[in-house]
Amino acid sequence: MAGARRSRAEQIVAPVDRMASVRALVDAELLEVNRLIIDRMQSPVALIPQLAQHLTAAGGKRVRPMLTLLAANMCGYRGQRHIGLATSVEFIHTATLLHDDVVDESDLRRGIKTANAVWGNKAPVLVGDFLFSRAFQLMVTDGSLRVLDILANASAVIAEGEVAQLVTANDTDTTEQAYLDMIAAKTAALFRAACQVGAVVAERPEADEEALASYGQNLGIAFQLVDDALDYSAQQAVLGKTVGDDFREGKITLPVLLAFARGDDAERAFWRRTMEELDQRPDDLDQATGLLLAHGALAGTIDRAAEFGEAARRAIAPFPWSRHKEALLDIVDFCIERAY
Amino acid sequence: MAGARRSRAEQIVAPVDRMASVRALVDAELLEVNRLIIDRMQSPVALIPQLAQHLTAAGGKRVRPMLTLLAANMCGYRGQRHIGLATSVEFIHTATLLHDDVVDESDLRRGIKTANAVWGNKAPVLVGDFLFSRAFQLMVTDGSLRVLDILANASAVIAEGEVAQLVTANDTDTTEQAYLDMIAAKTAALFRAACQVGAVVAERPEADEEALASYGQNLGIAFQLVDDALDYSAQQAVLGKTVGDDFREGKITLPVLLAFARGDDAERAFWRRTMEELDQRPDDLDQATGLLLAHGALAGTIDRAAEFGEAARRAIAPFPWSRHKEALLDIVDFCIERAY
Repeated sequence: MAGARRSRAEQIVAPVDRMASVRALVDAELLEVNRLIIDRMQSPVALIPQLAQHLTAAGGKRVRPMLTLLAANMCGYRGQRHIGLATSVEFIHTATLLHDDVVDESDLRRGIKTANAVWGNKAPVLVGDFLFSRAFQLMVTDGSLRVLDILANASAVIAEGEVAQLVTANDTDTTEQAYLDMIAAKTAALFRAACQVGAVVAERPEADEEALASYGQNLGIAFQLVDDALDYSAQQAVLGKTVGDDFREGKITLPVLLAFARGDDAERAFWRRTMEELDQRPDDLDQATGLLLAHGALAGTIDRAAEFGEAARRAIAPFPWSRHKEALLDIVDFCIERAY
Repeated sequence: MAGARRSRAEQIVAPVDRMASVRALVDAELLEVNRLIIDRMQSPVALIPQLAQHLTAAGGKRVRPMLTLLAANMCGYRGQRHIGLATSVEFIHTATLLHDDVVDESDLRRGIKTANAVWGNKAPVLVGDFLFSRAFQLMVTDGSLRVLDILANASAVIAEGEVAQLVTANDTDTTEQAYLDMIAAKTAALFRAACQVGAVVAERPEADEEALASYGQNLGIAFQLVDDALDYSAQQAVLGKTVGDDFREGKITLPVLLAFARGDDAERAFWRRTMEELDQRPDDLDQATGLLLAHGALAGTIDRAAEFGEAARRAIAPFPWSRHKEALLDIVDFCIERAY
């Protein structure tokens, strides 16, 4: 929580700097991943690379493939298989992003989403399916049933998590545990698999595989919690993103659950009206943010994220020192610090 | 084309009878497939089996898994692996059906589709992803990289075909070859893979694998062509399906391409207005059907289907006689005859 006491300039620059040096460590390998991404998204059907490029080519952070590369390197791997698997992981991620963009009639009626206006709903779904298939083709080329098992399981768990989120999306009665289970599935499962396959290609014993899986799982939960807090934070605006997207969609996240639990009857009525009934008025977002701050719900969410971050750090403690291990630890810090 | 001379009662009853005896041949195995479908669509997230059941549990024809079962049996296979792979094939099919149901803003504006009204757009997409993942989990359990390769490739080709259809959907300038390539990808690829894996589990030489792949490919194209013709046929109404869905969506199919090619300027203007601009008036469907009949476009489409059906029959000619081979030949006949 030291970041909270930093100057504003440090708040913005320091974590970015740290990520730059992490990235530099696997820069050459990330370039190979990028090349493979471009290569494997090709298709005689021109719309496929056109649409896929929107999400993959343009400045993707490549967090998940970077985890695969770093994990493999930390495990002493010296081959080329991690390039294909990192690409596979990124394709699965991109497919889920494309499918997340699908809009409902109700969304259209509320006039919130316009992202799919150019392509319609169907093209992103089908291009997502294409990338998903490509991911499995890459794994088949790799030839490890263990890797296929890990990533096929992760894909099923992600889909389950996304459906669970759909079901609980507007329900203020969601428990903290149900919420954590949901993000463990929809976000952390792929972080977990991305790290685990790094150990698999290096043919490390199961304990190491499990340690990296646990690192990824905890990092993924921390990552999502920070994202959920940032959605209500002015810091988000500094990073050039919109504030309040989750609120407008009525998406229940930990900050809201904490504020709801700590609020009085009038406040709970406010959350029910805005989040469950989606009856929102112009200054409701300001009031929501005010309630979150008043109840320390954002800080509380970051505290939870920091706990999961600590668990991630502990999980890889047994590995001997290496620059790649340092980088994995730095990613945890960056993940938490970007909240400030 | 013998079916054309049959009495009306025969038209309806005969093909169904024939399919019943085909089905009886693999009845016990289909039951196992059904059990596995129910079992593998389970999830702690209740919406998943609820939604999946809509498509899988209720009277699915199970054409594709039946092909896997028959192909494996014809190849002399005596184990249990074909059950899991047939289920995997059906899950891929169901996932594409769910994703096909996704509606666009434009569809909603035209007020045509209401299928996803209950669940919204997002749930079918995510449940489709879940079933797709389950398909790959089943293949991983099977443990054959060859099977994984065949079905991952098929999945990528299907997605490419679906996107290609999206692009050419309203284009009356689509060539017959481009159209055939498109349905080869979007429909025939899975028929092909479903049959091919039957030879793979039986560990037959590559020539047999290729023969079954070719059978499936040609059957799949024939199947889609007949479907496209039926969409304009009164026979469709007898089967309890709506007539003219493709027309209303402006989906260009072979019947329309043939009528367009054989039509005069006024007729081409009609097709452009109705299919490209989607400017449709109450009796346009009747006029469209009239033009298709006047130019023999439905019969022409069925003729093409019959040619592909013949190619399917020829492909498996080298296999020695067996009841399962007879059944595969019967399926070709049924596929063509249901057009009458």
